[in-house]
Amino acid sequence: MESLAAVDARLHRELQSRYEALVPVLRHGTQLGGKRLRPALLLLSGAAMHADRTAKNPLTTEESATTEDHVVMATVVEMVHTATLIHDDVLDKATTRRHVPTINARWNDDTSILLGDYLFAQSFYLAATLPSTLACRLVGQAAQKVCEGELRQVLGRDWLDIDEETYLDIIRGKTAELTRVSCQIGADLSGGDEGQVEAFARFGNDLGIAFQIADDFLDLWGDDDNVGKTLGTDLQQGKITLPLIRLLRHDDNAVAMAALDALRLPPEDRLGRVMPLLRKSDAAEYTRKVAESYRRSAIEAISGFAPSSALESLKTIADFAVDRRF
Amino acid sequence: MESLAAVDARLHRELQSRYEALVPVLRHGTQLGGKRLRPALLLLSGAAMHADRTAKNPLTTEESATTEDHVVMATVVEMVHTATLIHDDVLDKATTRRHVPTINARWNDDTSILLGDYLFAQSFYLAATLPSTLACRLVGQAAQKVCEGELRQVLGRDWLDIDEETYLDIIRGKTAELTRVSCQIGADLSGGDEGQVEAFARFGNDLGIAFQIADDFLDLWGDDDNVGKTLGTDLQQGKITLPLIRLLRHDDNAVAMAALDALRLPPEDRLGRVMPLLRKSDAAEYTRKVAESYRRSAIEAISGFAPSSALESLKTIADFAVDRRF
Repeated sequence: MESLAAVDARLHRELQSRYEALVPVLRHGTQLGGKRLRPALLLLSGAAMHADRTAKNPLTTEESATTEDHVVMATVVEMVHTATLIHDDVLDKATTRRHVPTINARWNDDTSILLGDYLFAQSFYLAATLPSTLACRLVGQAAQKVCEGELRQVLGRDWLDIDEETYLDIIRGKTAELTRVSCQIGADLSGGDEGQVEAFARFGNDLGIAFQIADDFLDLWGDDDNVGKTLGTDLQQGKITLPLIRLLRHDDNAVAMAALDALRLPPEDRLGRVMPLLRKSDAAEYTRKVAESYRRSAIEAISGFAPSSALESLKTIADFAVDRRF
Repeated sequence: MESLAAVDARLHRELQSRYEALVPVLRHGTQLGGKRLRPALLLLSGAAMHADRTAKNPLTTEESATTEDHVVMATVVEMVHTATLIHDDVLDKATTRRHVPTINARWNDDTSILLGDYLFAQSFYLAATLPSTLACRLVGQAAQKVCEGELRQVLGRDWLDIDEETYLDIIRGKTAELTRVSCQIGADLSGGDEGQVEAFARFGNDLGIAFQIADDFLDLWGDDDNVGKTLGTDLQQGKITLPLIRLLRHDDNAVAMAALDALRLPPEDRLGRVMPLLRKSDAAEYTRKVAESYRRSAIEAISGFAPSSALESLKTIADFAVDRRF
């Protein structure tokens, strides 16, 4: 995707500094994002919306599918995402991310905190260079919901008490909010009407939820090398995920009780005790099913738009989000 | 000041949450700010600018001195300031601020990091509710410069090498940027022209520098109880300040060398060894003099405006910034 390269170039340009000491830190920060999922969603939603308008009204839509504003906002969502990753690595005491040393490992926690703040501030500034305040509001609100979701996780002392509804509510904030707003902004910048923009927003929301559930699945049944982090990390950090919620509500109360005991063990002992219990339950199958239902609902949301390669790509991303390993 | 109460009320209203677990953390966060210096500067700059326009053009200015937009933006700058304080307390491992336990002491570092992020995001969202993107751009840029200044301090390995120019450059980012932008936005919202807005910006900038130099002075010669933190904290944390820069450049090379040795001691031993050397130098007097020159230059910047009680209050704040203890 050509315009994704424009985002990378823009990201690189924005993260220059006249202070030499900052250059390597900023450069390292931009390498942590990896997949560039959110910019891709924004650009593709924009292109799909544009293609739809062109198909229905060939004479009135002359501007190109990806405008400079699309590239700017794609850069913004990637910056916000990177800022949250950098802070997450401090919270999780992570030393590598996608096989690259984290900022806190290579420098220290203080540098991570300040670099994340710097990226937040820079992204808001950049969003404010667009003529309307809508993008600023959407991005500000999304970033707030991301933090709110994480704060609830940190402050939720009795993690074993979390039910499926609360779990979904937390990942809606933590992950789906930024994918939702990426699709929303992309479609809005391409002149979609309220209903159309809302459809793309719903696609981004449901895709984000499916993506996070798949991530939670991979933490237990993934392959260390592909995932790029140690298995069972969520479990060690006391983060409750959908497979565990399912296991704790097992029909056979003895299994549920054994799971509860296992999760109360010291962090490093949990995985070994939980895995055999998970195998005896339908947790993997159930998790897969829920992720799949969100994938379907995401694709459903954008099914009414005119066919285009951008629209096809969005559907492929939704498939990939869920089928990365299963 | 009546409208400062409106800022407090707005702050309180903005920091509600539908999640019960977040309420005490948010409430505690808003108590850390203390002086409300930045909102006061914004509101007073707005009122002084309004008074000036009314004095020169009694017929054309009908709106009130403090508009809803002033209150919103005063709330925004206070939120940004609070966010940076909360993150600073993590960097400094501080346990109290103005006799109140810090977020990291009362909860933990993770909560502080996320709460700071939450406040940043919320403040940008709030700024984006104003019709123009100018406030968003100014606040985004100011927040970025604050982080940049702090990052430079954290990454600046050889702190003993810092000269006066670099020091001023760092505090310009760390402290003066946000006071500058507060005054600038206040005057802009009251319809000041480019030159007038720039004059208030210069006032805020120079006041911020004077204020920070006074703070650095108080870290060495203040009174524990009034300052609300332990003396010599900067020294222990390896933060170079103006008195020390002056001392390290003492005419008598033996004194300069003794100071260098003292600053290379373990953190807790530094204060005892540095104080006698400082007493033998003109560092205190020199520091006072530099702060005083910025105070004068701040007041000079706004001397051309029509007299008003708001303008007088700004001058009083400038006096207070420098004369808090000396």
